[in-house]
Order: sequence, then structure tokens, then C-alpha cells
Amino acid sequence: MDELLEQLVNDCMGYTKEGRVASYIPELSKVSPDALGVYMIASDGKHYGAGDHAAHFTIQSIVKPILLLQALLDNGIEFVSARVGTEATGKPFDAINVSEQRLDSENLNPMVNMGAIVMCSLIHGDTYQDKIRRVLELTRRLAGNREIDIDEAVYASEKAYGSKNRALAYLLKSYGLLEDPVEDVLECYFQACSISVTCKDLANIGFVLANRGRTPGANERVVPAAYTQYVNAILMTCGMYNGSGDFAIRVGVPAKSGVGGGIMAVVPTRMGIGIYSPALDTKGNSVAGIQLLEKLSQQLYLSIF
Amino acid sequence: MDELLEQLVNDCMGYTKEGRVASYIPELSKVSPDALGVYMIASDGKHYGAGDHAAHFTIQSIVKPILLLQALLDNGIEFVSARVGTEATGKPFDAINVSEQRLDSENLNPMVNMGAIVMCSLIHGDTYQDKIRRVLELTRRLAGNREIDIDEAVYASEKAYGSKNRALAYLLKSYGLLEDPVEDVLECYFQACSISVTCKDLANIGFVLANRGRTPGANERVVPAAYTQYVNAILMTCGMYNGSGDFAIRVGVPAKSGVGGGIMAVVPTRMGIGIYSPALDTKGNSVAGIQLLEKLSQQLYLSIF
Amino acid sequence: MDELLEQLVNDCMGYTKEGRVASYIPELSKVSPDALGVYMIASDGKHYGAGDHAAHFTIQSIVKPILLLQALLDNGIEFVSARVGTEATGKPFDAINVSEQRLDSENLNPMVNMGAIVMCSLIHGDTYQDKIRRVLELTRRLAGNREIDIDEAVYASEKAYGSKNRALAYLLKSYGLLEDPVEDVLECYFQACSISVTCKDLANIGFVLANRGRTPGANERVVPAAYTQYVNAILMTCGMYNGSGDFAIRVGVPAKSGVGGGIMAVVPTRMGIGIYSPALDTKGNSVAGIQLLEKLSQQLYLSIF
Amino acid sequence: MDELLEQLVNDCMGYTKEGRVASYIPELSKVSPDALGVYMIASDGKHYGAGDHAAHFTIQSIVKPILLLQALLDNGIEFVSARVGTEATGKPFDAINVSEQRLDSENLNPMVNMGAIVMCSLIHGDTYQDKIRRVLELTRRLAGNREIDIDEAVYASEKAYGSKNRALAYLLKSYGLLEDPVEDVLECYFQACSISVTCKDLANIGFVLANRGRTPGANERVVPAAYTQYVNAILMTCGMYNGSGDFAIRVGVPAKSGVGGGIMAVVPTRMGIGIYSPALDTKGNSVAGIQLLEKLSQQLYLSIF
Repeated sequence: MDELLEQLVNDCMGYTKEGRVASYIPELSKVSPDALGVYMIASDGKHYGAGDHAAHFTIQSIVKPILLLQALLDNGIEFVSARVGTEATGKPFDAINVSEQRLDSENLNPMVNMGAIVMCSLIHGDTYQDKIRRVLELTRRLAGNREIDIDEAVYASEKAYGSKNRALAYLLKSYGLLEDPVEDVLECYFQACSISVTCKDLANIGFVLANRGRTPGANERVVPAAYTQYVNAILMTCGMYNGSGDFAIRVGVPAKSGVGGGIMAVVPTRMGIGIYSPALDTKGNSVAGIQLLEKLSQQLYLSIF
Repeated sequence: MDELLEQLVNDCMGYTKEGRVASYIPELSKVSPDALGVYMIASDGKHYGAGDHAAHFTIQSIVKPILLLQALLDNGIEFVSARVGTEATGKPFDAINVSEQRLDSENLNPMVNMGAIVMCSLIHGDTYQDKIRRVLELTRRLAGNREIDIDEAVYASEKAYGSKNRALAYLLKSYGLLEDPVEDVLECYFQACSISVTCKDLANIGFVLANRGRTPGANERVVPAAYTQYVNAILMTCGMYNGSGDFAIRVGVPAKSGVGGGIMAVVPTRMGIGIYSPALDTKGNSVAGIQLLEKLSQQLYLSIF
Repeated sequence: MDELLEQLVNDCMGYTKEGRVASYIPELSKVSPDALGVYMIASDGKHYGAGDHAAHFTIQSIVKPILLLQALLDNGIEFVSARVGTEATGKPFDAINVSEQRLDSENLNPMVNMGAIVMCSLIHGDTYQDKIRRVLELTRRLAGNREIDIDEAVYASEKAYGSKNRALAYLLKSYGLLEDPVEDVLECYFQACSISVTCKDLANIGFVLANRGRTPGANERVVPAAYTQYVNAILMTCGMYNGSGDFAIRVGVPAKSGVGGGIMAVVPTRMGIGIYSPALDTKGNSVAGIQLLEKLSQQLYLSIF
Repeated sequence: MDELLEQLVNDCMGYTKEGRVASYIPELSKVSPDALGVYMIASDGKHYGAGDHAAHFTIQSIVKPILLLQALLDNGIEFVSARVGTEATGKPFDAINVSEQRLDSENLNPMVNMGAIVMCSLIHGDTYQDKIRRVLELTRRLAGNREIDIDEAVYASEKAYGSKNRALAYLLKSYGLLEDPVEDVLECYFQACSISVTCKDLANIGFVLANRGRTPGANERVVPAAYTQYVNAILMTCGMYNGSGDFAIRVGVPAKSGVGGGIMAVVPTRMGIGIYSPALDTKGNSVAGIQLLEKLSQQLYLSIF
């Protein structure tokens, strides 16, 4: 398996030239565009890695399923479902999903910025410091890595260049969909997006989601199975932004991408996979990462369809 | 299992009162709103049925995956993918998916009317009579039922009240996305939507999709496995109109609904399911049908997530 | 004044190179792109002309105020106002003015294709031949020219390449906003757009609108003053497509343009002006025509603001 | 004339019951919904008033043409035109005028919130205190009233409940259309909207716009004639929100309304009119105010068409 991964990394390296590193905040644009790494944790507990799998990068939108999980843990499915929808929007991740003066909670989606901002406000905590601490703690448990922390430079950059997310949050507020002060909620959101991870961390998170809420090795429960089923379903329909339909065909497993270059893939009952390659396509997904996952899916028959 | 299905039919009968029979064409509005039936064909070849499973109804949008399969059989994945997109539109099935004067093929989706109309034009045949004959033949093979035919009264009604679909087709034509004469293409589309089926027929079609292209019993190949994987993935993300995200969470399997009241569900490797209950929710999906599938999914752990 | 017009034609001739002749139907694309003509009829009855003012071209959208006038003559303001709105749409002339599955009559505008198609259905006449005959008759009276007729080649081309307008008309029908058969209504619309005129004809029509409904010279009433006030107001806010706001600032009088290259301008109480120059900007307005009108407006203080 | 105005106030008083006082900020909802006043300053210098013409109310959106005038005075037409468009948007005043991820300066309009916020940033001044001081000074000169000042209670309310405008401003910033800090720009905008005026003030401002930039009585120039022509044209096409087309037909003069209940009407060369009646229609325009203006226009033949 290590050989297969090595070969796929070699085969897909060229695709890094077809994408572009995210540049909407200065800090993200500093990374090397030609990195490519993959890490896999299989149901038998074996670990495999190839390429730049040890590189650190920020989790970005891959924190969205974690924010959703924490909101579910704190409030249950019924409460969360009443405040955020689950339909694909057919639009980019930072789209202003408003038409004709209405904005309803059912038009939000927790895998799109607006919905994820609402998730931050639903997470329990006396202060927003508490909330982000709890999100970080859940991330560490899902990843099986106590060292995980926030990349302060990226966080500062997110905060300094966050006009679009501020616009989205004030819009939510003006429609009565956000009770807390906008800057507090965004503080949590910006920090959550700036959590620094490796491919191994993502593979571990993906494994827990694939393993109905239990960790590899210790088989310890982190979240209830009902929540992993809920999250995996949303990842399937909306996890890869407005490239989710194409990804479902080409790869066929629940996954979430981030503009930091990461992809976390969930192969139900079989494995968790973490990818890193920061050159993105126009939809914000890692170009070489998707290529590698497609080939891997073909080789190992990963598609659940 | 028969007992379970009987009980689910009884439990869900009340939900038929929460929906409304389709009324956009007079012929469809004539059916009884409180019908509810289910049919299941399992991987061991066993058949189960309960309720009004023997009722005949028109296939309507459930023919969309069949049109897509025929287009794939005739042209291959690459050709078809270049003429129709695969992303959820986030809009109702008959939406005019045009913004700002552009209409690109990638904004079409074969599970939405515009995309399905394009599929009709891609199917091979010297005339549109040939095309519809081939679609009917594929439907019969997928359903394992040589008796399947077109409901002429519904077809006449579709044709007489088809202004919205005519608008969609002329729009496609004006953007250069439809080469053939509009009325010819619509002839095929209206007839395809008017194919008359039963729950058993849908269960059989679902089984072939769940069984990587092979029929129950004879295990005969109808379509290549690569095409069922392609179709199932699209059903997962877009099969239940703009209720697909919710369905993925609550039921968790690829499925397609039609405004005739049918639902065809695909449980990969395990079973095909056909449902009939014509009282629809506002999105055009069978109310009691979705409820029954949700309960069935919980009882038999059908969700693939 | 003749000298002034000659000089303006010379000054503005260069702008014809900045536009493009309409090409959405083959017949329109055959005209010479560098033609420029102007004709003016002043309140003292004097006529002035310069450049290619004798050239014939099709009236295209400039027939829209005439269709509106005929609808008003046949039904009165209250009836017409209930079936078509009067707000600028902020969109191009052939936009699909539908969002979120609704299409209301108040979202239509008689200066945009959809609204103009509805006007055709409101005009009295036993058959559509009758209707178009009456539109032609009103055009002749407004223009003071019995020779005006339909350009059969353009009409045939409009009909052959009319998919977009067919889409708009079927959409109206599907929303219950059009009672008559689509092809009949479009017959009237396509013929009306194909009426052949000269700058002098447009100047005469503009004069009647500027003169509260009475012809130059004979001072004969063609339409009631209340209707010219109604039409001029709509021309002011919507007459130049989504370039109307800019035109109001730069020229400052009610006007209507057509993709045939014509502009009819109404200077209330003072004059009617006809322009011809078929090289269009991206919004469908004559580039050199607007330039000439802007300079003329500055020289003669035509702006009503 | 005083009698005519008295009678119109009596005739239109009943219409105040058909509207609703603005409630998006608590302070505005406190006013009496049945007030109705009118004030007129004619070209011969005569003043007329009737009803509640002495009541004070906040200027709200009627400050938009003043912000535009100050931006024009400080930067000239060319500079301003490059940063804001002039087309009607076809949407409500606080609409998010974004579609498909693009927001261009040409889609802004100075009579809609987003465009007016940009105007605030173009006005000269070392600090935003300077800017608002200059806007206030221009308002006083246009109104011929040194007593005009800001209503601090409304301003505090605007600021406290300004999430929608904050969303619009951050959106502008994220698209690079606003250079200054959002909260600074909004400070100016919120204060400008909170300027307290009477019908007489609005009539005087309207007179200056009708009189090519000169005051009644002293005939002193406040702004160049070219700027009043520019502003009046925009008022004609966009001054009454998405009710501008209807107003052009029914009244036929440039005007601007505000959600405080005011309307300022400009009858070129003839008069300035100020109206106050805070019961608004669904588009944000004073119901009784428009009725009164329509009747007045019919009686005095005010329509410029």
C-alpha cells in the first residue's frame, strides 16, 4: 500500500501546476504550490503515508464538519436542524445566498460559510474563548493528537482580511439568524479555520467519521454514530463546495476540502484519508488532491455507489 | 419482512394527508391521494410487497436516470459529461437555471428538466419515434417487465399543458445547447415521462442500479457497472430535487422521485425498492414515501454513511 | 440647424467603429456598420436632416411604445396597468425576469420583450392578422407615412431564429400571463419588430409623443394626451434598456432604441428626433446615435432636468 | 393655492391608514402614522403650506441626492461616475445587489444604500467628523436653514440597529469598492440619514434642484447647473426606489423619498415641494404623500412628459 501511495503521489505531482494557491489572505499565499501528500488509516489499524504528509497547513473549511459535530453534541439534531438547512446551494462557498430580500435558516448550509458561522454561535461556552477551546479540544480528540493548535499568523491574517465573512455575519444578524455579537462569533470562526493540522490528523478525523464515531486503535467513542451518519451525508452532498456532484461521481465517498489545500475523505467502515496539496482549482478544491483520490478510489474500489 | 413492510405502510398511511397530488396537468390530478405501496427486491432474490404496490402510475422524473443511462450507453461518459453538468442546482426541478444572460452546459443537470431534455437529444435514433422506442426498451429491460408501456392519456395531457417545458427547451435552443427541433425533442421527453409503472418495476430498476448493472435472478448485465456508479452518485446528490440533502441524512441511499408519486431507491449491493404514494410535499416528493423509507432505513440500517 | 446636424454627423461618425451590428438574426447582420443619420421635426413645423437619414431599417424595439399605445387605445390605462408593470428591471431587454419560481405581471415591463409580447395579446382583433394590420395602421398614422410596411426578409429571419422569444412567450403562458396561442402572439410580435422605417418616420412618431398626441403640420390627434404622458414616462425610465439611467443624465429626454440601429427621441413640447446608426454597444443601443444625441442635447439644451 | 393644498391634505388624509410607519429601527416607529403635510416654494418666490408641514422628521434616504451632490462638488462628474453606476437596479433600496460572485461599481447606484455608502467615502474631509460637518453644511445651504441639525436619538438607533448597512459596507469593502474603515464610513452615513428636517426644508432643497442650482429669493448659486441636471435625472429614474417607474407615470417629476416619511419633489423651472406623511407602502414610499403629489400634478399639470 505504501508503494501504491508513493506511485500515486508521483503520478499526480504534475497536477499541482494546474492550480493556484489561495490568495484571499496574504498568509495563505506563502505556501509552496507544488506540495502533495497523502496519509491513510485503514480499518485494520494500519497507517500509510507518502509525499509531503508531514507538512503542517491550516484546516480552513475542513473545520466545518467539526463545528457541526460540536453544535450537534451541544444541542442535538432537532435543535441544529431548525437553525441550518442541508441542501446544496449550487453556489460557491462564500456566496451571499440571498435572493429577493429573504434569508431563511433553511437556505443556510453548515458546509458553507454562512451556515458555519451560525454553528459557531450554537456551540456552548460562557465566552467565545470557551467555545473555541472546546472546538480545539474536539479537533484534538477526533485527530488523536494533543499537539494540535492554532496557527496564530494565519488567524491574524484571517481577522485582518475578513470583510467578506463580516458581511456574511452582519447579514445573518440583520435577518435575525445570529443572536451573539458579530465580532465575537467571527473570532471563534477565524480561529477555528486557523487550526494547524497534518495529513495524519485529517486521516484520523476521517477514520472516526468512517468508523461510526470511534477512534482507530483504542476504538474509543468520540461522537455518537447518529452524528457521523448526519455529517457524512452532508459531506457527500456539499463537502466539496460546488464541485460535490463531480466528486461524488469521480471518487464516490464523503469528503471535505479546505482552501488551505487539505482534503479529508471518509470511506465508510474502511478508512480515513488525509490529503495535502495547496494548488486549488477555481472552486477552491485541491487539484492534485482530487486527482490522487480519484485514482486511489479506482484502484481500491472505494466508491460507495 | 413482509410483516415489517405491512406495518410501515400502516404507520405511514397518515402522512398521505399532509401532501397534495400533482395538479400541473389535469390527468395527474385524478389519482387517489391516499394510496401507499412499497415493493422490495433483495440481494438474495427475494421479493416483498405491501400496500398499493400493484397500482399503476406514470414514472415522470424517475425516467431521468433512464434517459441518462441511455445517453451514456449511446455516447459514453466523456461525451455526455461535456454536455451536461453534475452539480446540484439548489433550485426546484423546473427552475429556469439562468442568471445574468448566460446558460452553460455545466449549469445543467440530468436530474433537472433542462438537463433531461438535453439527454433526449443525445439518445441515438433516426427519428424521435426510434429514440422513445429505445428508451422504452431500456426501461423494460431494467424493470424486467415486457408489458411496460406509455400511458397515452397522461402523455396527451403532458403535451397539451407543456408550456413550462417548451420554455425550457426553447431556452436551451437559444443558447445553442439543443440542436434538434424543440417539438421533436419534447415529444420524446413527454412520452418518456408518461411511461406507466408499478412499485415492482421501480424496485427492479433500483436493484439493477444497486447490483452494478445486473438483473435480479438471471444476473444478466443491462448496463456497465461504471454507468450505475455514475448514475447512483448523481441520484445521491440530486435525485430528490432540492430535498436531496435532507433525504441523504434521513434515508442515506441514492433515490429518484417523480411527481407521479413514485420513488425508486437504490441500496448498493443490498436491494432495490419501489414506492408509490402520490401525495407530494412542496418540493415534489412523496410525503408518505419518504417517511416510509426513513423508517425502513432505520430498521434495516440502510444508510450508506 | 441643418449645418449643426451635418457637423454632428461628421463629429460622431468615428463612434460607429466602437459598436457592432446586431447579429442574433442573420438578416440584421447584413447592414453597413458605418451608417449614421439624423432627422428632426421641430415645434414650428420645420424639418431638418443630415447623413443617412433616408436609409430604411427595421423598427425593432422602437415598436414597443407603439404596441403599448395600441393596447392603451384598445383597453385603457387601468386594464393595461393590471397586466404589465412599469418598473425598470435592471436587466437586459431579453432577460428572463424570473427568480425563485415566480413570475408576476408587475415584474413585466412593456419596454422589455416579455411585456411587449403581452401587449400583442391585448391588442384587439379577431385574428392576429387583424392585430398586426392595426399596429401597422397606427404606426403609419404616428409616422405620417402611408408607405410604411413590413420588411419580409427580416420578418422571416426573426421567425426562423426566434427561440429566445419563444422561450419567453412559453414562460408567460406557463405562468398564466398569456391566454392566446404562443405562435399566434409571436407572429404579431415578429411582424411588428420587422416594420421598415426611416429617420423621418421616427422623428414624426417622436413629434406626436412630444406634442401630446397630435401630428406636426395638421395638428391632428392620433392618441389622447394621457397616453403620451404615460408612454413618455416609461420611455424615460426604461426606453434605452439597461442604459436608461445613463441616457437620462447624458441626454435627458424620453427615447426608445432598437437593435436595428434606430433611436426615436421625444423632446416634450419642442421636437421629435429620429436617428439611425446600426453599430450597437453591448446593451443594444446605437453608439454613434447616443453620442450625437448627447451633443445635440448640450447644444440645444434639450434635457428636461 | 393655499386652499388647494388644504383640500388635497383633507382628500388624502385617509390614505395614511393604508401604510405603515417604518419599524426597522425602534426610534422611527414612534412617530404618529396619520400625519400629512405639504409645503411648496414656487418660481415667483411665493411659499404655500398645509397640514403638518411644520413637523420635524429625519431626512433618511432624501439625503442621498445631497451626498451625491457633495461627492460631485468634491470630485467632479467623471470621478464619481467611475465609482458608481446610474442604472435602476429593479430591486429594493437595501438589496444586496450581487449575483454570481461579482460586484462592480457600475452595479451600484447612489440612490440605493450601497451606492450612498460609497458616496460618503468620496466626500472630502480629514476625518469623518469633517465629512459629516460638510454634508450638514451643504444641507443647510440647500434648505436655506441654518438651524438644521442631526436627530441624536434616531442616529443612536440607526447605529445600534445597523446590521444590514454594516453587511452592505463590508461587502463593498471585500470587493475593493470601499477604501476607508467600514465603521468610519457608516458613522457618516448614519448621521447623514438622521438629519432632522421639515417640509419647508425639503421644498427649499427641491427648489434649488428645480432652479438649476440657485436658491429661491436671493437666487444664490449653491451647486453648478450641470450637477442639478445630473441629480434630477437620477431622481427621475431611481428616486422612488423600485416604485420610480410608477411615480414617473402618475406624477411625472424627479423626486426622492425617505423611510422617515418625507418626499422631496423637483418641478424643473417651476417649484420645489416638500411632503411629510410617515405611513409607508411596501416599497418604503409615503402612501398619502404620493397620492397628494399625483393629485397636485394633475391639477397643476406638473408632469414633464
